[in-house]
Amino acid sequence: MLLNCVAYRHGVKIAEPTVEEISDYLARTDCFVWVAMRDATEAELNTMQEEFGLHDLAVEDARHGHQRPKVEEYGDTLFVAMHLPEYIDAELSVGEVNVFVGRNFILSIRSRSSHNLLGVRERCEREPELLKLGSGFVLYALMDAVVDRYFPLIDKLELQLEAIEEHLFDKGYSLATIAQLYGLKRKISVLKHAVMPLMEATSKLYGGRVPPICVNTQEYLRDVYDHLTRINTTIDMMRDTITTAILVSQSTVSIEQNEVNKRLAAWAAIFAVATAFVGIWGMNFQHMPELKLEYGYPLALLVIITVCGLLYFRFKRAGWL
Amino acid sequence: MLLNCVAYRHGVKIAEPTVEEISDYLARTDCFVWVAMRDATEAELNTMQEEFGLHDLAVEDARHGHQRPKVEEYGDTLFVAMHLPEYIDAELSVGEVNVFVGRNFILSIRSRSSHNLLGVRERCEREPELLKLGSGFVLYALMDAVVDRYFPLIDKLELQLEAIEEHLFDKGYSLATIAQLYGLKRKISVLKHAVMPLMEATSKLYGGRVPPICVNTQEYLRDVYDHLTRINTTIDMMRDTITTAILVSQSTVSIEQNEVNKRLAAWAAIFAVATAFVGIWGMNFQHMPELKLEYGYPLALLVIITVCGLLYFRFKRAGWL
Amino acid sequence: MLLNCVAYRHGVKIAEPTVEEISDYLARTDCFVWVAMRDATEAELNTMQEEFGLHDLAVEDARHGHQRPKVEEYGDTLFVAMHLPEYIDAELSVGEVNVFVGRNFILSIRSRSSHNLLGVRERCEREPELLKLGSGFVLYALMDAVVDRYFPLIDKLELQLEAIEEHLFDKGYSLATIAQLYGLKRKISVLKHAVMPLMEATSKLYGGRVPPICVNTQEYLRDVYDHLTRINTTIDMMRDTITTAILVSQSTVSIEQNEVNKRLAAWAAIFAVATAFVGIWGMNFQHMPELKLEYGYPLALLVIITVCGLLYFRFKRAGWL
Amino acid sequence: MLLNCVAYRHGVKIAEPTVEEISDYLARTDCFVWVAMRDATEAELNTMQEEFGLHDLAVEDARHGHQRPKVEEYGDTLFVAMHLPEYIDAELSVGEVNVFVGRNFILSIRSRSSHNLLGVRERCEREPELLKLGSGFVLYALMDAVVDRYFPLIDKLELQLEAIEEHLFDKGYSLATIAQLYGLKRKISVLKHAVMPLMEATSKLYGGRVPPICVNTQEYLRDVYDHLTRINTTIDMMRDTITTAILVSQSTVSIEQNEVNKRLAAWAAIFAVATAFVGIWGMNFQHMPELKLEYGYPLALLVIITVCGLLYFRFKRAGWL
Amino acid sequence: MLLNCVAYRHGVKIAEPTVEEISDYLARTDCFVWVAMRDATEAELNTMQEEFGLHDLAVEDARHGHQRPKVEEYGDTLFVAMHLPEYIDAELSVGEVNVFVGRNFILSIRSRSSHNLLGVRERCEREPELLKLGSGFVLYALMDAVVDRYFPLIDKLELQLEAIEEHLFDKGYSLATIAQLYGLKRKISVLKHAVMPLMEATSKLYGGRVPPICVNTQEYLRDVYDHLTRINTTIDMMRDTITTAILVSQSTVSIEQNEVNKRLAAWAAIFAVATAFVGIWGMNFQHMPELKLEYGYPLALLVIITVCGLLYFRFKRAGWL
Ligand SMILES: [Mg+2]
Ligand SMILES: [Mg+2]
Ligand SMILES: [Mg+2]
Ligand SMILES: [Mg+2]
Ligand SMILES: [Mg+2]
Ligand SMILES: [Mg+2]
Ligand SMILES: [Mg+2]
Ligand SMILES: [Mg+2]
Ligand SMILES: [Mg+2]
Ligand SMILES: [Mg+2]
Ligand SMILES: [Mg+2]
Ligand SMILES: [Mg+2]
Ligand SMILES: [Mg+2]
Ligand SMILES: [Mg+2]
Ligand SMILES: [Mg+2]
Ligand SMILES: [Mg+2]
Ligand SMILES: [Mg+2]
Ligand SMILES: [Mg+2]
Ligand SMILES: [Mg+2]
Ligand SMILES: [Mg+2]
Ligand SMILES: [Mg+2]
Ligand SMILES: [Mg+2]
Ligand SMILES: [Mg+2]
Ligand SMILES: [Mg+2]
Ligand SMILES: [Mg+2]
Ligand SMILES: [Mg+2]
Ligand SMILES: [Mg+2]
Ligand SMILES: [Mg+2]
Ligand SMILES: [Mg+2]
Ligand SMILES: [Mg+2]
Ligand SMILES: [Mg+2]
Repeated sequence: MLLNCVAYRHGVKIAEPTVEEISDYLARTDCFVWVAMRDATEAELNTMQEEFGLHDLAVEDARHGHQRPKVEEYGDTLFVAMHLPEYIDAELSVGEVNVFVGRNFILSIRSRSSHNLLGVRERCEREPELLKLGSGFVLYALMDAVVDRYFPLIDKLELQLEAIEEHLFDKGYSLATIAQLYGLKRKISVLKHAVMPLMEATSKLYGGRVPPICVNTQEYLRDVYDHLTRINTTIDMMRDTITTAILVSQSTVSIEQNEVNKRLAAWAAIFAVATAFVGIWGMNFQHMPELKLEYGYPLALLVIITVCGLLYFRFKRAGWL
Repeated sequence: MLLNCVAYRHGVKIAEPTVEEISDYLARTDCFVWVAMRDATEAELNTMQEEFGLHDLAVEDARHGHQRPKVEEYGDTLFVAMHLPEYIDAELSVGEVNVFVGRNFILSIRSRSSHNLLGVRERCEREPELLKLGSGFVLYALMDAVVDRYFPLIDKLELQLEAIEEHLFDKGYSLATIAQLYGLKRKISVLKHAVMPLMEATSKLYGGRVPPICVNTQEYLRDVYDHLTRINTTIDMMRDTITTAILVSQSTVSIEQNEVNKRLAAWAAIFAVATAFVGIWGMNFQHMPELKLEYGYPLALLVIITVCGLLYFRFKRAGWL
Repeated sequence: MLLNCVAYRHGVKIAEPTVEEISDYLARTDCFVWVAMRDATEAELNTMQEEFGLHDLAVEDARHGHQRPKVEEYGDTLFVAMHLPEYIDAELSVGEVNVFVGRNFILSIRSRSSHNLLGVRERCEREPELLKLGSGFVLYALMDAVVDRYFPLIDKLELQLEAIEEHLFDKGYSLATIAQLYGLKRKISVLKHAVMPLMEATSKLYGGRVPPICVNTQEYLRDVYDHLTRINTTIDMMRDTITTAILVSQSTVSIEQNEVNKRLAAWAAIFAVATAFVGIWGMNFQHMPELKLEYGYPLALLVIITVCGLLYFRFKRAGWL
Repeated sequence: MLLNCVAYRHGVKIAEPTVEEISDYLARTDCFVWVAMRDATEAELNTMQEEFGLHDLAVEDARHGHQRPKVEEYGDTLFVAMHLPEYIDAELSVGEVNVFVGRNFILSIRSRSSHNLLGVRERCEREPELLKLGSGFVLYALMDAVVDRYFPLIDKLELQLEAIEEHLFDKGYSLATIAQLYGLKRKISVLKHAVMPLMEATSKLYGGRVPPICVNTQEYLRDVYDHLTRINTTIDMMRDTITTAILVSQSTVSIEQNEVNKRLAAWAAIFAVATAFVGIWGMNFQHMPELKLEYGYPLALLVIITVCGLLYFRFKRAGWL
Repeated sequence: MLLNCVAYRHGVKIAEPTVEEISDYLARTDCFVWVAMRDATEAELNTMQEEFGLHDLAVEDARHGHQRPKVEEYGDTLFVAMHLPEYIDAELSVGEVNVFVGRNFILSIRSRSSHNLLGVRERCEREPELLKLGSGFVLYALMDAVVDRYFPLIDKLELQLEAIEEHLFDKGYSLATIAQLYGLKRKISVLKHAVMPLMEATSKLYGGRVPPICVNTQEYLRDVYDHLTRINTTIDMMRDTITTAILVSQSTVSIEQNEVNKRLAAWAAIFAVATAFVGIWGMNFQHMPELKLEYGYPLALLVIITVCGLLYFRFKRAGWL
């Protein structure tokens, strides 16, 4: 679906051409056209390919979707694919933004995502000084907007990790903890595969040889790269922490088991002693003088309770009970 | 076995030469010959070596098979080895496609594989504009077809992993789960060793210095590289997930054991208490007044049941039962 | 908050200009201005941006804070971000030092940190021979001072690790040990992310192509790099040790459990034997001649004690008790 | 010990000079000398050093042995060290082949190995077309022969791994399995350290800047490199599999323990119930009416058997027995 | 402390100047001065700095000590820092050798080490042909001597590892084994941090761009590098083996526990059966005909012994006892 289509000259909007009029504006040397689409259909893509002269392979990628984040040069044109993950019902759903950038046009196509990128155009139009830099600046603004969407996701996952860490050494929570750590690691992997390839691709848009479109906006693209590096570092830190946390969680399970075993051993010993004693006085020997004592029974109970009590306190002191 | 042998001029089929006639067409400067073979015999390979002037070492590799995926330059000729894994009775069987590419010929040999590559020729003949690019384009088309065969395999393995994950935290499934994870990791390793070396070799077919045959088809070969990178990323992600899943599965075993131990401890305690009590009243002291009470027996049973019941509820509340 | 603002000529202080006078000194070719701030406000940053002509993106980073350590060139100006971690109530709090360096000025802004960097100015003013090198030397002095703050932190964490290691093979300390190892690993990660990016950035300030400001102070900046490498190596060593220690700690738990199990088994066996014996003589068969012996009862006790004693010594010798 | 010494001209044997005559043949420009030795003594090495003008450091390496596999240039001469592992009584013994190659000579010294490299000379003499390429081709032939010795070793270790994998999930085999995996990993490490350094050194003998002796045989040396890469890949795959197998084997132990624990718990419960029941009817209360019933005893036995039977089937159904 | 100070000309000793005379010899173009010190004091270092014109930062490193191994260029002068670990009372103590090398001087300072490097001077003076190469050859000789000190340490640690491996699968040794593995890993880390940075620094002293002092001794310095690579490879192999050994040791613990558990279960079952039987005949039912049989008691004992014996043999056969 076409969202909007605007022609700019010296950083200022001059018209909202129809799709057919785009080629007229492309023919002029002093302006550029910025088209925004959402979930473009086959037909719409074909029209745009014809209008802007896009390469078959790039259009194919945009059509199929599910590409790795990347930046590809096709002659003078750049094709940029970015992931746009979002939380839908506690699951990470991964949408995409595909951008075609030429000297005098930029075409952005958002797919399978509820994220609104309208703010990018507003910001650009508020800063004509920068928009004057041309399609390269719009590319920066789009990339910056997409990357800014990653921060709240990272924050959310960090909060989840911190919540899990609070119960890491608690008893009885291990299975839930480990399941949550496993799920978190899966989500972080999704984010990692959105961020790292884009970071690598962005690193080729500033310093050294650079696509002509990006020459004037290198410092801005380096800033995008810097954001991606920060996110990537955080992701790696979280991944490492989760692996350690799973390892540590395994230990918690073993330690808890150790304590249960000790308690089991202690109570088993106490009752085994009692049972042995009562068994002794339950034997049927004829000559067991204590059986005939008037206070034999309460004395016997006292002996048993005393012995078991002593055991109890010994185990208590040893930390087994 | 020779599958077919066709001469093309300006992207259009002009003849189906016999093996002996190949050299006649190679002598012309305006056409190229495309030969497809399957499980070539020693004799067939020797004929082809002579006809196309192939290097001893490359032909040796094609004869022996079981090569690492690779791209090797022998003077003006390229030798490309690719793996073609397929599922046969739940096992991964690895076939091969070996391709010799010269300025005006391409020879592809498929070995130990039921995969049909006929579609490649059909696709090329439908697009004479592209086939006009010569043997370099046919190489791309073959590589693209081989790599496209990897996607359904990856999908299948991902489905298997997801199926295992559903039982990851289930009790009593651990051994089966771990055995499945182990088997899956083995299969993924096979795929990894088909994909990664080919990816690395393909990365040298576009950008910077490139074999002359590939100069006109760099954007296409970059697309193959992009597919391989995507597959490789997915493989790495799965490998990492499997390692974590094995680790997590170990934890599930420990946690289950913990619960069994607690239950064992609880029931042992309850019965030990009962046994101690009945032992007491089984002692043979002469003066045990409660033994003479009319309702002594039912009272004793009541005491025992009450104490055991209290224990039971305490354990229940502690989550041990 | 502005801490101080001094103009230097040939390495010697010549004036303490007000903020408004800064531009006058910048206009002169023979001196440079060094401004130090702390937790700068929005307004103060704007003034400085105007006064020194700083780039929007760099000022934005200084304003937002929480940047990765880095060195960025904006034309002739360098922007350097460094972390300044410190211990506050057993937690690592991470402050920042952001530095803008031009040919004839240097502006340092310390944020969220109680660390005092006044000593840097004192040191520089004591060595006019070196301060004569200009703003590049001040940059070195600031970086050196920040990096010197890392050493006591590392020492502290190493001491903590050594303290944990002393209890690594002790029984009953496992949960505390593992929790401490986990906490330590978290803190080391914080330090790692302060040190490693700064190390990488610093490595580009000497040898080969270097920002013009750093040309005369390369040997000094290499010294900073060398310090960072040393710290980084220590961090990596500690991380590896902690991972191994967690693994080893898991083993300690298992081994302790093993011993408890053996003890449990031994005592269970001893009491089970006693219980079986007393049970035998508690049976009600009419013809049990030993029951009628005068010393049957003490003999029986002797037999039970002997058998249990023998078992006890056997278990003792086997190391189970 | 000198094995043989032959002079070649245009790829054809022309003489078998004595050691003293070697220098005569080296003086001629149209031939090269190929000397083969085995476990050379100090004196023999000194003679050869003098005859061929070998560098002190290279001769020292050959004398000491136990070098890392490597290729070193000393002026126009190459020194190549290779490992030659072989199975002796189920242990891997590592012999060596050291090769000195000059423009017009090649000296190979085999040490501590029963592997016969005579076949190399036979193969070379059968192909005078290739031997004509000079000492560089002989170097290739020797390297190729050594590397070919690695394949059967790898195959043997792979078979051992497969044999271990068959028992990986079997009960009661764990200790043996893990000990075998450990031993296998040790052997693979030995092979790894024979293969990887040689692979890296060989990669510098073709493409880009190459020692003059290897210029004409680059395609052949690349083939050696390709073999080494294949072996190295297999080794890495096996190492990874072994690590996973050890991890998986640990799980098998835990799972088996789980089952034993469950069975123990089940039987303990059954007998505890029986003991409690018989304890009840062993109490000495005067008024226990069921004790006087004519069929009280068989009824009691029936009750006990029924209750225990019910428990038994419940545990059976739960999979604990 | 100054150990000795000698001036050489054409590889031959010409004088033993006092400290004050050093500058006279440095002024001559045809000789070089070699000074050896041990645990130099602040004052001695200052004198040397003045005499040789050493850089502040390098002298600071020598004064502080505890540097990472490294090679730094200060103009024409090289500063080399090396670790010199030695065994003192079963602990690794790390001394240092710092070397300053100029065109016509070399100053070596050994710190906190009992290792004697006198042999280096003797060796050099015995080979004037090589000593003629100047200070660069002395640097090589010193580095070679230091690196040769590493080999016996590595051998010692390898012997320790082999000693541990002999008990790896023994029962009851686990805790000691794991503690030893942990301690060994710590020592190997110390060695790793002596070897790896020095190896990396040495790799920049031969091939490609090289400090002028090392130009004539590149083949010798490559030999030092080769030694360091060999040591480093051994260290990596040992580290990997230790990690696997800890993992394997954990398994041994689990397997031993498994066996204890089985034995516990078996004996518990046997005695539980005996206790149940004697409990039955200890019940007080009036009509228990077997109680009145003349041989009822011995028969009962026989039944119990038979049943328990059968259980015993069954457990024996199952490998539980
Ligand atoms: Mg890990
Ligand atoms: Mg892990
Ligand atoms: Mg791990
Ligand atoms: Mg880890
Ligand atoms: Mg673990
Ligand atoms: Mg792990
Ligand atoms: Mg792992
Ligand atoms: Mg992992
Ligand atoms: Mg792993
Ligand atoms: Mg791992
Ligand atoms: Mg584990
Ligand atoms: Mg593990
Ligand atoms: Mg692991
Ligand atoms: Mg680990
Ligand atoms: Mg580890
Ligand atoms: Mg580890
Ligand atoms: Mg572990
Ligand atoms: Mg592990
Ligand atoms: Mg691990
Ligand atoms: Mg692994
Ligand atoms: Mg592992
Ligand atoms: Mg591993
Ligand atoms: Mg591991
Ligand atoms: Mg693993
Ligand atoms: Mg494990
Ligand atoms: Mg490991
Ligand atoms: Mg590990
Ligand atoms: Mg390992
Ligand atoms: Mg490991
Ligand atoms: Mg482990
Ligand atoms: Mg482990």
